[in-house]
This record gives sequence, structure tokens and C-alpha cells, in this order.
Amino acid sequence: MTPGALLRELRERKPLIHQITNYVVMNETANVTLAIGALPVMAHAPEEVEEMASHAGALVLNIGTLSQEWVEAMVLAGKAAGRAGVPVVLDPVGVGATSLRTESARRILEQVEVAVVRGNPAETAALAGIEAEIRGVESLGAAAEGAELASGAARALGTTVSVTGATDFVSDGERTLAVRNGDPLLATITGSGCMSSTMTGCFLAVERSVEAAAAALAAFGVAGEDAASGAKGPGTFHANLYDALYNLTPETLDERARIAVA
Amino acid sequence: MTPGALLRELRERKPLIHQITNYVVMNETANVTLAIGALPVMAHAPEEVEEMASHAGALVLNIGTLSQEWVEAMVLAGKAAGRAGVPVVLDPVGVGATSLRTESARRILEQVEVAVVRGNPAETAALAGIEAEIRGVESLGAAAEGAELASGAARALGTTVSVTGATDFVSDGERTLAVRNGDPLLATITGSGCMSSTMTGCFLAVERSVEAAAAALAAFGVAGEDAASGAKGPGTFHANLYDALYNLTPETLDERARIAVA
Amino acid sequence: MTPGALLRELRERKPLIHQITNYVVMNETANVTLAIGALPVMAHAPEEVEEMASHAGALVLNIGTLSQEWVEAMVLAGKAAGRAGVPVVLDPVGVGATSLRTESARRILEQVEVAVVRGNPAETAALAGIEAEIRGVESLGAAAEGAELASGAARALGTTVSVTGATDFVSDGERTLAVRNGDPLLATITGSGCMSSTMTGCFLAVERSVEAAAAALAAFGVAGEDAASGAKGPGTFHANLYDALYNLTPETLDERARIAVA
Repeated sequence: MTPGALLRELRERKPLIHQITNYVVMNETANVTLAIGALPVMAHAPEEVEEMASHAGALVLNIGTLSQEWVEAMVLAGKAAGRAGVPVVLDPVGVGATSLRTESARRILEQVEVAVVRGNPAETAALAGIEAEIRGVESLGAAAEGAELASGAARALGTTVSVTGATDFVSDGERTLAVRNGDPLLATITGSGCMSSTMTGCFLAVERSVEAAAAALAAFGVAGEDAASGAKGPGTFHANLYDALYNLTPETLDERARIAVA
Repeated sequence: MTPGALLRELRERKPLIHQITNYVVMNETANVTLAIGALPVMAHAPEEVEEMASHAGALVLNIGTLSQEWVEAMVLAGKAAGRAGVPVVLDPVGVGATSLRTESARRILEQVEVAVVRGNPAETAALAGIEAEIRGVESLGAAAEGAELASGAARALGTTVSVTGATDFVSDGERTLAVRNGDPLLATITGSGCMSSTMTGCFLAVERSVEAAAAALAAFGVAGEDAASGAKGPGTFHANLYDALYNLTPETLDERARIAVA
Repeated sequence: MTPGALLRELRERKPLIHQITNYVVMNETANVTLAIGALPVMAHAPEEVEEMASHAGALVLNIGTLSQEWVEAMVLAGKAAGRAGVPVVLDPVGVGATSLRTESARRILEQVEVAVVRGNPAETAALAGIEAEIRGVESLGAAAEGAELASGAARALGTTVSVTGATDFVSDGERTLAVRNGDPLLATITGSGCMSSTMTGCFLAVERSVEAAAAALAAFGVAGEDAASGAKGPGTFHANLYDALYNLTPETLDERARIAVA
């Protein structure tokens, strides 16, 4: 399916996107989910995550403000998702910055069948065991070996990998797509990476493919482009971003998505 | 008192609204509390919730991202509120979606004297034991048997019930009021239901009555109508919503509140 | 350094600001950090806070939605910051409202080398043992004995103290600066106090001085003034605030900062 066709189907199905994510961005990723046309649910209690995840269209795990208890819940939810055939997206926020983050992300990858890992270059490199430096949780715009990083990490981790930055790269280790949408203002608000992981979950709920993962990033990027026009800085850009996601049409997405083989 | 008179008194008294609510909407419901003219406080530690709740004008309990520890704190706070004569609002987010949610909400209702339950149709039906389907935590706009649902749930639960949707219904089991304010954009942002529960707490702090519960929903709805004018989508609507609550005058509220016996 | 010189250096260094803060404002303080030009990271797990804090440019501890576990993490992080020479800002949200808050803030002050305490008048007075009344967590605009309160609290607590209100006062017990920037709309959004604590952390990461603490408040105040122009209420003001922080230049800050010896 084309990006536009995926978006059209997403809006018809309105999949439930179960998110176990960090405290910083919960409101924002829930609003992204609603704005693009899906239904968000946040639930982290071990008593309910399996029930919730098995009914979802996709499960998004994000370790941005992790604790041991939450990682346990992520593993429980991820296994239930796997049993139910629900695609799982992992956002390895801050991997490389502390050993707890690196170990937790690796543990989730070992115990859960992850469909897509979505990270910035430094996180992806650290997770896949490539040398990298991470300062904080915001992307530092690492050099443009993104395509090799994405495909190398995909092979190392045995999953599809989306590396986002000025250009995004999505690879299953064999095929790699480059997505050239977006705006620099996305880097000025917290959680834009987390939002792109949520977008990935929304599109994977429709179709589990490298194309769908790339379409999610293209849709988010096109919305970012629209949000930037008329924005006077990060605050008005942030408000505009939800408007842009909500108003994005399948036709516009097909017309403006800049997805190419890398 | 009329809705406008309640709003005027709310702004004079500036009641403290203690909220034990979900991670997703804490900032938003705190900002709603401030915008309408009350003072928010969020506190969930078992060591302090009784002290805080007993000094509050109202207590709002919301199980949107519940865990066992938080439900314990809600029960402690709710009992302290009951002893101090502080009205309690319960928002049963996602009841029906998992058994943890249903059991937790029922437990709170058993152990705490709840003044108002504010939910969407599916949550209210599930809580009151009526057959219903819930997908996620957003209202699905169930059929318009809202008035019967509200009064039936109020009788079943022994409390006032506010069922919100395109039309809101507030009932104590004997009298039922319909509130016909609001805008469809309210359904495009996460936490609009949680916000209406917080509004309910703010107005109950002034007067514990079916009329006050309905006035809270009317005030929120009128603000939603104002926020929609000029909004280009969920993001600008969301920003406008706080402006509209802040700028809402008692006169405007009395003029535009569409409250009628159902 | 002048306020503008501090801002210029902040943007060149992009210090990592580790924040262990409340659930209500995490997104907002992360966005303030990014907008002014630093990098935010939120981390509270005891397994990682020491590692994170020791790599940071500053550590901000905020007890707005405290629990015992989080206070433990704050102490661990604060001690690690102390060992690494990283300045620590403490925001004693709601101290005086419950004994848990008062005891927790005092415990942090005893066990951690705090560079700056940033609070509203009531919190500061309660923390320093002066009689005061606190309702909720919002500043009540206590009487203008701010300068004496700041210097008295600084001597009592053995640290620099920033008391924010219509006029802000920063004192190390010997010298006291008054900062006369800001706008009344700042009091209409939740977390504006927390944001000013984060700003304090950002500027302390550049220079650990009374001047830097005052410059942080001046920068936040000037941004508040800019955000108010064109705002129609708290919602649009809030969006504008991030724009204003982002667009604030060193030249403008030096020109408009109203800092004077009190």
C-alpha cells in the first residue's frame, strides 16, 4: 500500500495503540495518536498490560523514564503482544547514556518479538553495539552514515530498524528506505522522537512492513513541514503539529512523501 | 445557584482541588483548574494524601494510568475526604477495558463516598453492570440512551452520575439534566473527559448538587465552543481551550449554558 | 558575566540538565530546557540517577509529586552531583502543605549540597522555618518582604535562595538581587515556578553564582513579557512562552533584564 492508502485504512480501522511510555511525552504521544486517527491507551500495571496489549492494534514500548517495574511490565505486555500477533515498536530512549538503559533495551529485545526499533543515530548505534556518544536523549544529528547504521543495526538486532534524523532510514537489513521529510523545528520540542515511534505503531497496526514504517515517518515529517509554516518557534510549532497531523490527507501524503531506496 | 453564579463564587473562593489522576493529563487538568479560577494540587504519596485531601475543596480520583499503589492512595484520600466532608469525583477511565480497571473503580465506589461519577457512556455502563464495549479510553459516542444510562447508573451506584458525549447527562437517579454544549473538537484531544471531571470537582467545591455538576459540564462545553472558533485542528483548539476557560464570564455562561431537564 | 553573556555561553555549551521532577511539568520543563538552548534528561531510577547526574551540567530536584522512592533517588542523584561538582537546584514544591513535603525537602537539604533553592514566598518561608500559609502549590503573591525573606532563608539554609513572585529576589545571605521581569499571565499556567527552577539549573550549569541565578529569572521573565504580547489567555501564552525563550537573544536579554541590588 502507498503511504496515503495506509493512512486511509488507519483512519477507517481506528486501531487501539497501547503505549507503555515515559512520563514526559505521554500526553503528546496520545495526542499524536488521536490526531492521526487512531486510539491511544496508556497502561502500565502488570495486572492489566497483557489484557490490554493483546487487544491492541500495536504496542509501543518506550524506556524514556524507565524503572525496573516498568520494564517488567513492558516485557509482560510485549510477550502478550507476541502471542496475539500484535506488532511491537521499541523506542530505546537514552540507550548508551546509562547501563540501566542499555541493559533494559537489550533485555526487551531478547524477550519480546520486536517489529521495529525506532531510535536516533546514537541510541541505535549503542543498542547495536557500535561505538557512539550520547548526550541526553535528544538526537545530536550524527553523521549521515544513517543508511549503513540502519541496515547494520537491523542485521545485528534481527528486526526492522528506523533511524531518524535530518534524513530518516528504515531497514530490515536487506532493503533500506530513506525518508526525506521533516523540519528542523522538530528537534526543538521534546518527544518528537517518541512521537515518531508512536506514529510507527499506528502505521504498523495497518500493515507490518518496512514500507509502513517508512510511511509513518513520512507522514510525521510532512506534518512537521506544515506545522513549521506559520510557526514562530517551538511553542506554536508544537500546537500546529497536531493540527497538521489531523488535517493530513491521504492524497497530500502520497504527493509529498519523499521515500526512496537508500 | 445559576451556572454563572457558581462560577462567580468559584473565582472568589479559589478552592483547592486535590487530584490523584493519570500521568497523561496531569498538566492539562492542572491548567484547566487554574484557567477556570481554582487551585490545583497533585499528590499521590500515601503519607500525605489524607492531609492534602482533608484541606481541599474537592478531590478528583482518576484511574487512567492506575497501579495498585495509586488505587490504595485514592482510597486513603477518598476516606479522608469523606471524613472532612470534601466532595469526591471519580473518573473511571477505561473501566470495562480490563478487569483491573473495573475492579479498582468498584472498590473505590465501595470504600469511598463518591459525590459524582463522571464517565463516557461505555465506562459508565460497564461500571454500573450494563453490557457495553470499550475500545481504549476515548468515548465512542454510544447511542443516545444517555439519559436512561445516567439515571440507571445513578440508581445502581447510589451516586450522581455524569455521562458525557455529544449531549451530556447528569442524574442523581431521580432528576436528570441534559447539557447541550460543546464541540466535536473536544473528542480530538486526549484528556477532555478527564478535564470535565476536574471541572466537576471545581464546581462541586462550591455547591454539591446535580445543578453544579451540570454547570461544570456546561462551562466546559461553552469554552469548547469558543475554543473551536478560530482553531485549525486539535493543537490550536487545545491552546484556545485554556484561553476560553480563563475568559469565560459568569454572564456569558448563564447566557449560553444549554441545560434542560432530560 | 552579564545575563546575555551567560545565555550565549549556555547555547554554545548546550549543557545536559538532569531533572528529577514532578509528573505534572516534565514535558514543560523539558521543553523550556530545549527552548533556552540546553539538553534535558529525565531519569529517576535509583540504578541510573548517579551515573546520569554525574555527567550533567546541572541537576534539578523538584518534589511536586513526591513519593518516598523518588526522594531516595533525589538524594542519590544529589550526592553524586556533589561528588562530581555538579550544581544542584532544589524546588521545594508545596513545602508547608504537608509534613511529608517539609520533611523531604529538609532531608534533601541536609544530605545534598544544594546550590540554589527556588521557591515561592510561602514555600521558602515554610522551608526556612518562618510562619506562613500555603494553599496548594501556586504562589499566593505573599507580601513584598521578599528581599528579607530571601536573605533570611539563605542564611538559615546555608545556600543561595531564589524567591519568585511579582518581583523575584535572589540572595546568598549577604548580597540580594531583585529581578523585576515577568508578566501576570505566568501565574495562570501550572509549572511556571518549576520552569523557573529549570531555567536556574540551565544558567548555573554555565556559572555558579548569584548573578547567574538572577539572570535565569530575568531571562524567564523577559520571555514571559514577550509571550504575553499577543496572548489571549493562558493557552496561547503558554505556546508563546516557548517561542519567546527560543527567540530570546543575548542582546535583548542584556537590554531588558531588570536586575538590581535589593
